[in-house]
Amino acid sequence: MKSSKKYIIGASALLIILVGCGLAVGRALNGGDESAYDETPKSMQQILSDIRSLMEANAIAAYIVPSVDAHSSEYISAHDRRLQYVTNFTGSAGTAIITLEAAALWTDSRYHLQAEGQLDSDYWTLMRQGLTDVPTQDDWLQENLPLGSQVGVDPFLITSTEFERLSRVLSSGGFRLVTLERNLVDSVWNNRPAQTSEALIPLDIKFSGKRASEKIADLREELEKNKASAIVINSLDETAWLLNLRGSDIQNTPVFFSYAIVSGTQISLFTNPDRITEAIVDHFRSEGITVTVRDYDDILAGIKEQVGERGKIIIATACNQAFYAQIPADQRIQLYSIVATKRAVKNAVEAEGMRKAHIRDGAAVIRYLHWLEENVDSENVTELSGAMKLREFRSLQENYVGLSFTAISAFGTNAAIVHYSPTEETDTLITRDNIYLIDSGGQYWDGTTDVTRSVHMGEPTAFQKEAFTRVLKGFLSLGSTVFPPKTSGTFFDAMARRALWDVGLDYGHGTGHGIGMFLGVHEYPPSVVSSTSSPGNIGLLENMFTSNEPGYYEADQFGIRLEDIVQVVPTEVAYDFAGRGALTFYSNTVVPLQTKLMDMTLMSDHEIELVNKYHERVMKEVGPLLLEQEANEAYIWLAKQTQALTRMLI
Amino acid sequence: MKSSKKYIIGASALLIILVGCGLAVGRALNGGDESAYDETPKSMQQILSDIRSLMEANAIAAYIVPSVDAHSSEYISAHDRRLQYVTNFTGSAGTAIITLEAAALWTDSRYHLQAEGQLDSDYWTLMRQGLTDVPTQDDWLQENLPLGSQVGVDPFLITSTEFERLSRVLSSGGFRLVTLERNLVDSVWNNRPAQTSEALIPLDIKFSGKRASEKIADLREELEKNKASAIVINSLDETAWLLNLRGSDIQNTPVFFSYAIVSGTQISLFTNPDRITEAIVDHFRSEGITVTVRDYDDILAGIKEQVGERGKIIIATACNQAFYAQIPADQRIQLYSIVATKRAVKNAVEAEGMRKAHIRDGAAVIRYLHWLEENVDSENVTELSGAMKLREFRSLQENYVGLSFTAISAFGTNAAIVHYSPTEETDTLITRDNIYLIDSGGQYWDGTTDVTRSVHMGEPTAFQKEAFTRVLKGFLSLGSTVFPPKTSGTFFDAMARRALWDVGLDYGHGTGHGIGMFLGVHEYPPSVVSSTSSPGNIGLLENMFTSNEPGYYEADQFGIRLEDIVQVVPTEVAYDFAGRGALTFYSNTVVPLQTKLMDMTLMSDHEIELVNKYHERVMKEVGPLLLEQEANEAYIWLAKQTQALTRMLI
Repeated sequence: MKSSKKYIIGASALLIILVGCGLAVGRALNGGDESAYDETPKSMQQILSDIRSLMEANAIAAYIVPSVDAHSSEYISAHDRRLQYVTNFTGSAGTAIITLEAAALWTDSRYHLQAEGQLDSDYWTLMRQGLTDVPTQDDWLQENLPLGSQVGVDPFLITSTEFERLSRVLSSGGFRLVTLERNLVDSVWNNRPAQTSEALIPLDIKFSGKRASEKIADLREELEKNKASAIVINSLDETAWLLNLRGSDIQNTPVFFSYAIVSGTQISLFTNPDRITEAIVDHFRSEGITVTVRDYDDILAGIKEQVGERGKIIIATACNQAFYAQIPADQRIQLYSIVATKRAVKNAVEAEGMRKAHIRDGAAVIRYLHWLEENVDSENVTELSGAMKLREFRSLQENYVGLSFTAISAFGTNAAIVHYSPTEETDTLITRDNIYLIDSGGQYWDGTTDVTRSVHMGEPTAFQKEAFTRVLKGFLSLGSTVFPPKTSGTFFDAMARRALWDVGLDYGHGTGHGIGMFLGVHEYPPSVVSSTSSPGNIGLLENMFTSNEPGYYEADQFGIRLEDIVQVVPTEVAYDFAGRGALTFYSNTVVPLQTKLMDMTLMSDHEIELVNKYHERVMKEVGPLLLEQEANEAYIWLAKQTQALTRMLI
Repeated sequence: MKSSKKYIIGASALLIILVGCGLAVGRALNGGDESAYDETPKSMQQILSDIRSLMEANAIAAYIVPSVDAHSSEYISAHDRRLQYVTNFTGSAGTAIITLEAAALWTDSRYHLQAEGQLDSDYWTLMRQGLTDVPTQDDWLQENLPLGSQVGVDPFLITSTEFERLSRVLSSGGFRLVTLERNLVDSVWNNRPAQTSEALIPLDIKFSGKRASEKIADLREELEKNKASAIVINSLDETAWLLNLRGSDIQNTPVFFSYAIVSGTQISLFTNPDRITEAIVDHFRSEGITVTVRDYDDILAGIKEQVGERGKIIIATACNQAFYAQIPADQRIQLYSIVATKRAVKNAVEAEGMRKAHIRDGAAVIRYLHWLEENVDSENVTELSGAMKLREFRSLQENYVGLSFTAISAFGTNAAIVHYSPTEETDTLITRDNIYLIDSGGQYWDGTTDVTRSVHMGEPTAFQKEAFTRVLKGFLSLGSTVFPPKTSGTFFDAMARRALWDVGLDYGHGTGHGIGMFLGVHEYPPSVVSSTSSPGNIGLLENMFTSNEPGYYEADQFGIRLEDIVQVVPTEVAYDFAGRGALTFYSNTVVPLQTKLMDMTLMSDHEIELVNKYHERVMKEVGPLLLEQEANEAYIWLAKQTQALTRMLI
């Protein structure tokens, strides 16, 4: 903290803003071999040959190119699409390995077809992960490299745990995993998009519910508990939450490129200092914090200085290898992210905001579903144009900022592809002949939403009704469970599957993910998955939020998914074992479930009652908003959709 | 393998039996300070002062005395009751720490009262684990020792993972954890019972279903898969299973003191060589294996020789620190026990034996419950005398060997104490005024049993009926679940609790444990518990066996538990997602559930049908056996107990 100039901004009596680049020792300025910007795209041959030259210069026989950014972000910016640059593959998950003679891309079954189409097989081999005869990266490396070879990786793009694992495997096979300070792809990427640096957005206390100063105080308490002097924050959404700041560096997720270090006495924010405008200075002041702003690329220097203070430093278990290696073992405490764990329990203002945002979002989805019924016979509504219309309905809502992800608007056989998103090429007409699945969400100042409904506008088959009803049974079972605090997500996962398991059906994805408050649409913890070793699978507590989204997918036929965002709330029970109280779920999502797809002979009276009560609430909460928006026909449609089911109706 | 003489026994063409003690370098012969045997008991003051002298001689400031033996056995022999010797405490779980000035015993809430009565407070402080103001052992050590002190422990009595954890904690606080080759308690224990060395019992192929040679071949395949040259086996029940041998060194569990090392070419059994009789030699021959027998105390030497072969050696995650430390890191592979995992899936003969043993065991329990009804009014049936009677009924059954554990025969308020076992002091009259809980089991040549029933022979209260019915609902829900292979135990745990959770009730123990085939009544994996990190909590596969035992305990009032041993079996379902098939449970236990305690208004039609079907099967399977045993009145009683429930009866 001594020699480097910094931007000190905030609530201290003496506000010092030092502008200048400091002793930035970061990666962007460090390599010296930065590829000069040049619009002309290189050929694949050129890219690979340039990378291989650098590999030889660095004495490595293989180079690993992961799909992630330095923050383990789920969605990454164009600047970070290194994997796409070297392979042409645009899928969200994959790993490339380049050797001096070969180049191979591993990706999972979601992307096998897509990768096949995008890879140039003159240069690339596709490794279809999950198929039995496909070697793992570990095995392939060991089979394709001369004994004693070095394998290189960018330490910012691999977690410390994965680095350690792979390192152990390779070294037991007679190889060596090494980190290269300079990313070889960046070095050859002549037309690389610049890192985005959009304006920072202060989040008002009326939305955040808790000042940054209080969040920092909580965090410092955790430092004391762990006898640590500082914590390094890696994830973009954690820094955003902690400082009550938002950004738009990444599409649909309101975050900004940054790292943070919080010590007992200081808050250091590593980001492009140009965006610390007067408004941001004011924000920090009103949030009650003093922030030292430093260049994004200064982060390793910042950690190094903190190491120099001799105290212990906390990093997250999902932390990258660059941070991990910077901190000596006896000063390092690696824990499941403290910030993420604190954030997981939303405060009263956030919880209230989430509820209200979901009511407005419900109005948008209901207006869309009504509009769809009205327009489906025009034979010009497609998956893409439908999604556009839904976006329009969302944009009319108060506090709307944007979408929380690209809608999965999927008709018929397309809906059987779990991770489908329509493109110009796949765009399909929506008709009355099959099930339409719409999974979408919005970003609002006061909440993030994520909802899925599956509807049939014609005559569903008996099997479609059975599948829908069994998905619904799991959805209702999970949604109505009463449980003690800290119950593991595994329980809820199986709860949602039981009615499907009963007849040998299932779905191949998790049942629930946490969700941010005007942040990531996927936020962990919590998560509701069967894997007991998933770190996000922690016990549920009051005011955690998760999705409840069972489904069923019949390949080449149809797909069904129902998804609500549910909030963990206390509930009254007759007894109170060990004085710990009882919890249940409250659906924030208020959009009707299509009764036409329900097979009432498979439903218990209790399940019918749950559907009726839910529909009553949907009408009560969203109805008035529809009238206010003068969506009178949608109001009438909703009234019909939410009419009580009775056994006599069958 | 060169210098040490060994006993080589088995199926090889040339049978060599070398008798003699070899170069035993084990602990019993190694210390030189073995306390001479002397009947006269030492005073507590003497014991502690003798230990403290040895501590000073070894330069340690604290000595840890755990309750376990070197095999992580659940039940230990008198020879291994070191904790009891130094503290007088007879509970099954606890840890003592002795410093030069103080001595403290940590034990959990089950044993707080008992320990209070047994500890001499002039010498010992009771640390009631679980209470908030009680320091952990970690904290207490650090607060009570001079900085830089050494803490000693017997490396055979601490797992490598716990050793590593504690070592890290202590060293970060400025202390050091060290292992002492010689156990200090053994050194001062003048009247220590000798290690039992009962006759070995060959298990016939008609009971084991698989020859030892095949089990060894399977294990060697695992060695190859893991590129290892040998595996060290630590657990008594694993060696017993592997060699199809039984013993009686530990009460109620048919195991014998031993270790084993299996390499690609050799099987070494470390046990008292005197028990390798002609019959055992014949057994090895008919099992198709050649066994090198060595002294029990030779085990570390045996591992050392194996290390000398330069190959990798597999040890279990629950392995003790002595073994762990004997193997250099680059030769060590530590895995969740391969033997236990193989054993968990029972073969067809074992599975058939388990079923049949449970039918005979059912006859014994039914005869007892009938006898109890007949004799309860005599006012001289107590918890202890009842348990004696039940033992008598078991001993009449074919293939009976003994009990599988001391029965929990608990009446009224005693049944609310989860780990209650009647003693002369607590023995209580069984009457018609409250619920009687009987949890018991037997060892048979063809199976191990464990069953719990709760009965009220008078008029239960409404709350007792509600509690019983909710326990029953969980029990039926778990027992009837259809699920895909590898479903985690966590799901079943919560399944058994849901009806209790619905009204804020619960129970404070796990829901299920694996069970051996004429082996330990608790055998892992599998287990059905909520803790996702429990290593025994693995996914269930066909022919695994587990208990299904939800309960409810109202302190100072009553206790309820229902327990069946259930077998994982395939089941037919309408569809077949991913071609993986479907599993469900089959109750091996056949003992009626008391309908008097059921509140049918809380039960669904499906639940009533499940009870009726079960009772029909109980009558069909056990009825003929009762007639065969001329237990005609018990037969009539059973017919009444298993009459179908109908709604009209309410």
